[in-house]
Amino acid sequence: MKHANKSKPSIRTASDSEGVTPLPGSVAVGIAGCTGRVGSILVEELLSGHWEGLTLAGGSVKTGFPHPDGPYFVTERADELFDVSDLVIDFTTPAATAQHLWQAAKHHKPLIVATTGLSKQQQDELQDAAREAPILYSANMSLGVNLLAALVEQAAARLGPDWDIEILETHHKHKIDAPSGTALALGKAAAAGRRVDMDSYAVLDRTGERKEGTIGFAVMRGGDVAGEHTVGFFEEKERLELTHRATDRAILSRGALRAAQWLGRQSSGLYTMRDVLEL
Amino acid sequence: MKHANKSKPSIRTASDSEGVTPLPGSVAVGIAGCTGRVGSILVEELLSGHWEGLTLAGGSVKTGFPHPDGPYFVTERADELFDVSDLVIDFTTPAATAQHLWQAAKHHKPLIVATTGLSKQQQDELQDAAREAPILYSANMSLGVNLLAALVEQAAARLGPDWDIEILETHHKHKIDAPSGTALALGKAAAAGRRVDMDSYAVLDRTGERKEGTIGFAVMRGGDVAGEHTVGFFEEKERLELTHRATDRAILSRGALRAAQWLGRQSSGLYTMRDVLEL
Amino acid sequence: MKHANKSKPSIRTASDSEGVTPLPGSVAVGIAGCTGRVGSILVEELLSGHWEGLTLAGGSVKTGFPHPDGPYFVTERADELFDVSDLVIDFTTPAATAQHLWQAAKHHKPLIVATTGLSKQQQDELQDAAREAPILYSANMSLGVNLLAALVEQAAARLGPDWDIEILETHHKHKIDAPSGTALALGKAAAAGRRVDMDSYAVLDRTGERKEGTIGFAVMRGGDVAGEHTVGFFEEKERLELTHRATDRAILSRGALRAAQWLGRQSSGLYTMRDVLEL
Amino acid sequence: MKHANKSKPSIRTASDSEGVTPLPGSVAVGIAGCTGRVGSILVEELLSGHWEGLTLAGGSVKTGFPHPDGPYFVTERADELFDVSDLVIDFTTPAATAQHLWQAAKHHKPLIVATTGLSKQQQDELQDAAREAPILYSANMSLGVNLLAALVEQAAARLGPDWDIEILETHHKHKIDAPSGTALALGKAAAAGRRVDMDSYAVLDRTGERKEGTIGFAVMRGGDVAGEHTVGFFEEKERLELTHRATDRAILSRGALRAAQWLGRQSSGLYTMRDVLEL
Repeated sequence: MKHANKSKPSIRTASDSEGVTPLPGSVAVGIAGCTGRVGSILVEELLSGHWEGLTLAGGSVKTGFPHPDGPYFVTERADELFDVSDLVIDFTTPAATAQHLWQAAKHHKPLIVATTGLSKQQQDELQDAAREAPILYSANMSLGVNLLAALVEQAAARLGPDWDIEILETHHKHKIDAPSGTALALGKAAAAGRRVDMDSYAVLDRTGERKEGTIGFAVMRGGDVAGEHTVGFFEEKERLELTHRATDRAILSRGALRAAQWLGRQSSGLYTMRDVLEL
Repeated sequence: MKHANKSKPSIRTASDSEGVTPLPGSVAVGIAGCTGRVGSILVEELLSGHWEGLTLAGGSVKTGFPHPDGPYFVTERADELFDVSDLVIDFTTPAATAQHLWQAAKHHKPLIVATTGLSKQQQDELQDAAREAPILYSANMSLGVNLLAALVEQAAARLGPDWDIEILETHHKHKIDAPSGTALALGKAAAAGRRVDMDSYAVLDRTGERKEGTIGFAVMRGGDVAGEHTVGFFEEKERLELTHRATDRAILSRGALRAAQWLGRQSSGLYTMRDVLEL
Repeated sequence: MKHANKSKPSIRTASDSEGVTPLPGSVAVGIAGCTGRVGSILVEELLSGHWEGLTLAGGSVKTGFPHPDGPYFVTERADELFDVSDLVIDFTTPAATAQHLWQAAKHHKPLIVATTGLSKQQQDELQDAAREAPILYSANMSLGVNLLAALVEQAAARLGPDWDIEILETHHKHKIDAPSGTALALGKAAAAGRRVDMDSYAVLDRTGERKEGTIGFAVMRGGDVAGEHTVGFFEEKERLELTHRATDRAILSRGALRAAQWLGRQSSGLYTMRDVLEL
Repeated sequence: MKHANKSKPSIRTASDSEGVTPLPGSVAVGIAGCTGRVGSILVEELLSGHWEGLTLAGGSVKTGFPHPDGPYFVTERADELFDVSDLVIDFTTPAATAQHLWQAAKHHKPLIVATTGLSKQQQDELQDAAREAPILYSANMSLGVNLLAALVEQAAARLGPDWDIEILETHHKHKIDAPSGTALALGKAAAAGRRVDMDSYAVLDRTGERKEGTIGFAVMRGGDVAGEHTVGFFEEKERLELTHRATDRAILSRGALRAAQWLGRQSSGLYTMRDVLEL
């Protein structure tokens, strides 16, 4: 049994996962980091059968970490996870993601990367792997946030530079970095709409008169807010406010599963959530 | 002098407006209803010279109504307004608009109609006139509101029916109708995104469990709010809120002038503000 | 052992709860409905030791219902719960609450009632029991909502009737009644501030011009919103908006425990959360 | 006629203002800076007769500045303004305010000071003048903002330090200072509610984990926003948001006139808008 885990007999559902002949159009999804915050939700969602065209192939955990109790295949080896899966979703760490990219390329199997904090070199490796397999990468898998970014880009393109752009983000009191990565991504979307480079226009210090064309950032921290982002476009006597509110990071799993439904049908290449939303 | 106003010698700038040879690319704009709430702002804006490619040709007032004091051509006759204008903007009444449509068709000159409350028959007349001239019709000329409608349509198309759509509008305490025409237009945009008919899905009474796919409306009335509209998309644990806030109806003039810059370059046909925004 | 449950030997912690000698100032709290949505959170919070001056005495479940696994006294009998408790918190049903009121009066022990849907007769029984024991009753135990109501009452008293009052509430898509009980309570607070009777001024249908002094209600339903309420005061050119947002009904437990800290020091009488907040 | 303006015969209504015998309870109000942004609105409001118990006594302009056209007494001298007035409202400059304070003390007449940017020494002079006359001073005369400050103080007092306080302000793109004076005043109100000193707790840089008890500030700049302030209180799973939105600085006149109705009945002393609102 090629994907057996010799040292830890946790392969409770090896027969299940091996014996399964995918329904026509069904994709067996492997979850890298299946006991993590989002990984465990992904497993639960796939087991629920609510995701048309998707089944659970199994999961992986970091070497030496506890295996979950669930009735499904679990391994500590990336190659075994890719063996049993038609597609892998990866909410892990940059080091683990490097292995998953290599396996995806080798197996020519689709990989969804939601790991944050990838280095410049790793982002190049995404490009390399994407020559051999369909790779989707997004720092924020939320459908709502990605749609928001697309709407912001359009609004910025249509409204012109006399509409002042301001981005407000609110997160829980434990968040360290400010502004949030998602706020910066929204700023980039706005800058792209205006065909300018965000870094030249982003403003954090609000003392002094506002310079035309700048993109302002404001930050609030409090309670347990999972994440709220508003992009405001201000003109004389009117304004547009585009807001996303999340009450739970679990929403990331929903985006990843929708991406899985879509990525299973694509050929090699590097994609983002905005491709999934066809924006 | 063909466009003289016999009874009231108010044609102070007849020589100005007659003698003008439009600069290459410059469009002489006539304002039907030039003493009205929005009409007077349009005159002021055009006289300010801030609108590239646009100049003021003159204005018209209802027969027997006071003429404005400004240094520009004023008439009570629709044909005279069309004689001196390259393009006409119409913020009047359905009865007056009927005449303007006829003149636009006869002169083959562009007409922007912002009159509200057109009958079914008059909407047909829009179609007829649009065979002879470029006609643009929008019940709400605000750039922001029209952009909002376009974003709502896209969001509804992308997010699927499990995202509950709710539309909230707030207006001043004197407003009679509810929900506002703009709220209904936003509902139509959402329904169009989902490829359904809004009338079958609109819900005003919120007692009882929410039915999937419905589009809810909520209404607030107070103070002197010029108009606020929010379209919310609600999913488990996240939501998207797209909001437009106006603090003055004067914003309608800005949309009409931007439409004028655009419509002057179009051929015959019926257009809306969303064509102007290239959405 | 007087509070033994003969039929179901689930009294795992009888010795614990019996043997406890409350620390000076410590109050042993009984949870009626200890396996319910909020009841189970109350148990967890009390076991955590985070609530100064409060310990867990035990809980009760409905006859025939499963007992929880936790290390604490559980009974199906109201009298037994009151025997072991210094104070009882009741998130149950009107029928069970009737018994708890009787026991509180008989034992002269404080009772916190958070049960909703009490009949007129039961509200009278609250009054009766309050002659024998400190009874606190609130349909919504949230600190934030009760503070909001107090602020609304003050704002309404200070601002005068030319500030139009509008109440907006948003709840999840499964909620049946509209407007929410909390929205109506906020309306009552506003009416109290103006010294009028809410029922004469509440308005749900927003067609037609707004009548001075009315209190408008607007309702939105979508997703899994736990509860959001905004009370807006609208004047010419300015407005005040007082908003409470809940993302989880668990906040009710926090209010109940704070009430317990307070009610343990009171003499007989009928109280509300606003007394706890000293508003 | 002692208060005649020799060089400019603008005293059109000297007879009116002199001959008037105030109705019992009527207060003749003088407007220092009667051609200014807010001063001219104050004149208009008083002439409208809408303010019960208040009439217009006249106005003053800076020496050498144009006099208004209106049918009322106008002077360039502070002493003349105080001669004809029962009470003076002052929306001028620190230098002019110094004179008005002196006149108020000398005439023992009430003075409302809305001038911003008073030095430390001038604030002492307020105290001195208040021994001789009723003096009311507020940097922001808006009823709504002052009520908001009072509500914020109460909320901060009731909710305890585990509710994180965040203050967001939005103003037009031309505003130089940040955060706004009103945002800082709201921060002081929150700190007062908690019985701490704001300066030790205010936080502008949001990088790093939030420290308990701090009061965060966030700033947005765009369009022509007259002024919006939100004070948020964030706890686990719930939050309270108290917001004031102004669409026109004209609201300051309303507060000043309400203050005039109140201050006319007071004895010597230093007051603020919060005294007027009886908060």
